[in-house]
Amino acid sequence: MTLSQLNQISDLLRDSPLDLGGDVGKMRRIFDEMLGSAPLPDDVRTETTELGGVPVVEVRAGATDPAAATVLYFHGGAYAIGSADASVGPVSEIARRTAATAYSVDYRLAPEHPFPAAVHDALAAYRALLDRGVPAGSVAVTGESAGGGLALALLLAIRDAGLPQPSSATVLSPWTDLTQSGGTVASRADEDPALSRRALDTRAADYLDGADPRTPLASPLHADLRGLPPLLIQAGGREILLDDALRLATRAAHADVPVVLRTFPGAPHVFQGFASVVEEAALALDQVAAFITDHARPEH
Amino acid sequence: MTLSQLNQISDLLRDSPLDLGGDVGKMRRIFDEMLGSAPLPDDVRTETTELGGVPVVEVRAGATDPAAATVLYFHGGAYAIGSADASVGPVSEIARRTAATAYSVDYRLAPEHPFPAAVHDALAAYRALLDRGVPAGSVAVTGESAGGGLALALLLAIRDAGLPQPSSATVLSPWTDLTQSGGTVASRADEDPALSRRALDTRAADYLDGADPRTPLASPLHADLRGLPPLLIQAGGREILLDDALRLATRAAHADVPVVLRTFPGAPHVFQGFASVVEEAALALDQVAAFITDHARPEH
Repeated sequence: MTLSQLNQISDLLRDSPLDLGGDVGKMRRIFDEMLGSAPLPDDVRTETTELGGVPVVEVRAGATDPAAATVLYFHGGAYAIGSADASVGPVSEIARRTAATAYSVDYRLAPEHPFPAAVHDALAAYRALLDRGVPAGSVAVTGESAGGGLALALLLAIRDAGLPQPSSATVLSPWTDLTQSGGTVASRADEDPALSRRALDTRAADYLDGADPRTPLASPLHADLRGLPPLLIQAGGREILLDDALRLATRAAHADVPVVLRTFPGAPHVFQGFASVVEEAALALDQVAAFITDHARPEH
Repeated sequence: MTLSQLNQISDLLRDSPLDLGGDVGKMRRIFDEMLGSAPLPDDVRTETTELGGVPVVEVRAGATDPAAATVLYFHGGAYAIGSADASVGPVSEIARRTAATAYSVDYRLAPEHPFPAAVHDALAAYRALLDRGVPAGSVAVTGESAGGGLALALLLAIRDAGLPQPSSATVLSPWTDLTQSGGTVASRADEDPALSRRALDTRAADYLDGADPRTPLASPLHADLRGLPPLLIQAGGREILLDDALRLATRAAHADVPVVLRTFPGAPHVFQGFASVVEEAALALDQVAAFITDHARPEH
């Protein structure tokens, strides 16, 4: 059992200087420092490039199989914080486990670039992959926290644009409801070492910039989810966004989307980022990789 | 894709003479004939025996590993129909995939033996396994339909008796709410080739025999689920009990139970019973076996 490890990372998060609802400039620096401070394994290769005019970091780790999936990854940070570069750690963990080429997407952030800028960037990056001849059936969309919500918004945008869907989508602790209406927003408030309703409300207002918080491309929980590809949803038990994941699973199942939901009691928000030191996080990413590989059909 | 196979088994179920809400004597004969008509693979060995005074069929298939899990299986049939013997097919599919010794339990049926007779039998069988020295950590509880509800009721009874929990529980299309309050009871009524609200109401009344339909040991959806072991829930998209599965996943996650939920759009109630002919059903049982094996710790 790794409950003690999960407790340790919860303590670490609780004591961190990061306040997701704080000053954006300051929090961006702290976030990037925190995530960038962990050294990357020697087998990780990165290259800063672009997809459809959107900056991305191309990530490979270990052996890369040209017949493997192509992963499109959307980092977290409540649509205002975080970067493709600072997320290379978790992206490389997925790339190594899938032998994939992965792209961590530097979508534009609020408040400078509010909704729907991030969705436009996500769709531009996906479209660029298809234009380069990458088969949709080999693409696996992945995202964490706000990036999980953005990954789902991308699937809706793909459907609405009449483009072929990717092979699968994986969302880790996704933020799917910018109204914060999940019951766990209150019931898990004391336990959650990373998120608070106040912080989410602040960042939702920045991102929405006056748009309806229930608009489907910003809050995919409130969307018609028909036609989405197979969906893997992972969530911790120690996070106020647990209900964003559980309600997404229910809504997606009702819309005839093949759903796999996995919950991890005791785990905080996006605990998978600690895969290099926490056994349960590494196992969770093993499951992500198996899901991606099971669904990727590079010939399609 | 195996959607055409799923359509075929749905047609088969729709055209079958089985009416789950019909005359019990007649339906028991039809059910046993239907399930018993499929020949078993040559590697299946069965022995009729007992556990704690409860009749069971011991099932092995292929190679059996003494260090593997011990599976306790509860058949379906709305608490009034079905038998351990008629369920040897699916039980043997799980036994083969896990190298386990499996026991299909002939718990007493309503209306002759209403609630809580079935729960008492389930607990007696589990207690007998422990008394024989089988480690709780090696036992995997499994059930389909009403047997899924019974498997969950067993976990509650184990907790309330102060006994150690099994390593995991797997429920296939579980019937968890004898009030039939799930939204899909109405919304999927036209699609479901096997179940109807009328049939479930009839059989619930037989089983409850006047007990409150929300009593936790009869309707585990309404129970406090704290302390339950890791739970795998599988459900089809073409069944009125879909919401029994989705609500169970949500309730269990809220109670800090590690949950894996898998939904199969287009699949009817307990489609896993067609594993020998339907690819998606075989894959679903592969997932069941992996879940059982991942959690079984025979040394504990």
